[in-house]
Amino acid sequence: MNILFGVSYVGTNYAGWQRQDNALGIQEVIENALQQITGKYVEIFASGRTDAGVHAYEQCFNAQLDFKDVKKLPRALNAFLPEDIKITYAKEVAGDFHARYSAHKKTYVYRLKQGDTQSPFDSFYTAYTQYNLDHKKMQKAADMFVGTHNFHAFCSSGTTVKDFERTIYSFTVTKTQNLYEFEICGNGFLYNMVRIIVGTLVDIARGKIAIDKIEEMFKTGKRQLAGKTMDAKGLVLKKVEY
Amino acid sequence: MNILFGVSYVGTNYAGWQRQDNALGIQEVIENALQQITGKYVEIFASGRTDAGVHAYEQCFNAQLDFKDVKKLPRALNAFLPEDIKITYAKEVAGDFHARYSAHKKTYVYRLKQGDTQSPFDSFYTAYTQYNLDHKKMQKAADMFVGTHNFHAFCSSGTTVKDFERTIYSFTVTKTQNLYEFEICGNGFLYNMVRIIVGTLVDIARGKIAIDKIEEMFKTGKRQLAGKTMDAKGLVLKKVEY
Repeated sequence: MNILFGVSYVGTNYAGWQRQDNALGIQEVIENALQQITGKYVEIFASGRTDAGVHAYEQCFNAQLDFKDVKKLPRALNAFLPEDIKITYAKEVAGDFHARYSAHKKTYVYRLKQGDTQSPFDSFYTAYTQYNLDHKKMQKAADMFVGTHNFHAFCSSGTTVKDFERTIYSFTVTKTQNLYEFEICGNGFLYNMVRIIVGTLVDIARGKIAIDKIEEMFKTGKRQLAGKTMDAKGLVLKKVEY
Repeated sequence: MNILFGVSYVGTNYAGWQRQDNALGIQEVIENALQQITGKYVEIFASGRTDAGVHAYEQCFNAQLDFKDVKKLPRALNAFLPEDIKITYAKEVAGDFHARYSAHKKTYVYRLKQGDTQSPFDSFYTAYTQYNLDHKKMQKAADMFVGTHNFHAFCSSGTTVKDFERTIYSFTVTKTQNLYEFEICGNGFLYNMVRIIVGTLVDIARGKIAIDKIEEMFKTGKRQLAGKTMDAKGLVLKKVEY
């Protein structure tokens, strides 16, 4: 059976999604739990990797395994998972379904608080800034990202990807008291793309980068024109749509 | 100078407030930071100890130290404190002020979610229950705690206290979606008292304990009549009033 799973995790204590030597990835923790209940190694395939420190309200992965009652899989797996990783659902899908290649849309949220002192209660999944930010200016800049563009300027080096064209379907910046939430939905994201885009909006909001430079970033693809890569801990993969 | 401090902390990674051998208490982390900025050991006195895993939106402590600009103390100290412990304010107080003996009121909040699966995003400072709880019944029971009573039945053994009489000024149970927040304000609390009171309300709400047993608990002082001690991680010291 080909089974699709939803999983929620706080990435603070992990070296990212991917299984790796010398560090614990979320993939390895889930594969170990699957081995506990099936008795053998089962490889899992995620919609995409998340970096060290990045979280997920709902990441998706699929795996080939046989299990009598699929509805009971989440509870069975959660018994072998730590508190910071929990399976949210499991359902059978078509044999050719792949969590990565079948994904149509992904939505990320970046959480950023403005203030003098970071609250310990925010420290796990909210980034902080001391700077006063211009909310309207950030939403205006966010609007310019919607559509199909060359996102080369918003991609960290070290990627093996060759096609930098991506489509952003929506991008909103909401403010609740001193918390900014950047919600971006697209057909796919490059390495560190969300964190660099948010960093660019923050630099625009602080007046460090002129808003009309965005067009130049798309045209030239120059990474150094864009803003800094924001801290991983503010980033959450919200959902994956198939 | 006698200085009063406010401090916010997530207690997850600490063995409680108190300095102790073989385990790290929050007191020790703050005293070490004070030593970094003053060059000598400074003992601090809290409004009360919090247990291992218990948090504080605002705990208070005082200390005798000389520092030129008291307003700058929080930022100076926070530079030497980890992300899960942050000083919220500092101000000079009278020489005979003591964070513990001068306290008039303390307010605690206990956070409890009802559901099948605990979200990883709640795992740090929210307790979980699978049971459906009767909200009205819990508020009715909470009302019976308001006033001056003998709280011997709501105190864990191992205390050196001899006077078990305490006054509760207010006790409310609010529900937001599936999150229950128990907010209790009193002139002082015994060892594990809030966690046992909340455990008693939960047992009443589940129908395990009859609501009219509360009077018997006050009269007899028998610990075994009251409910279980709830998990530490749901408890937060909200504020201390002087």
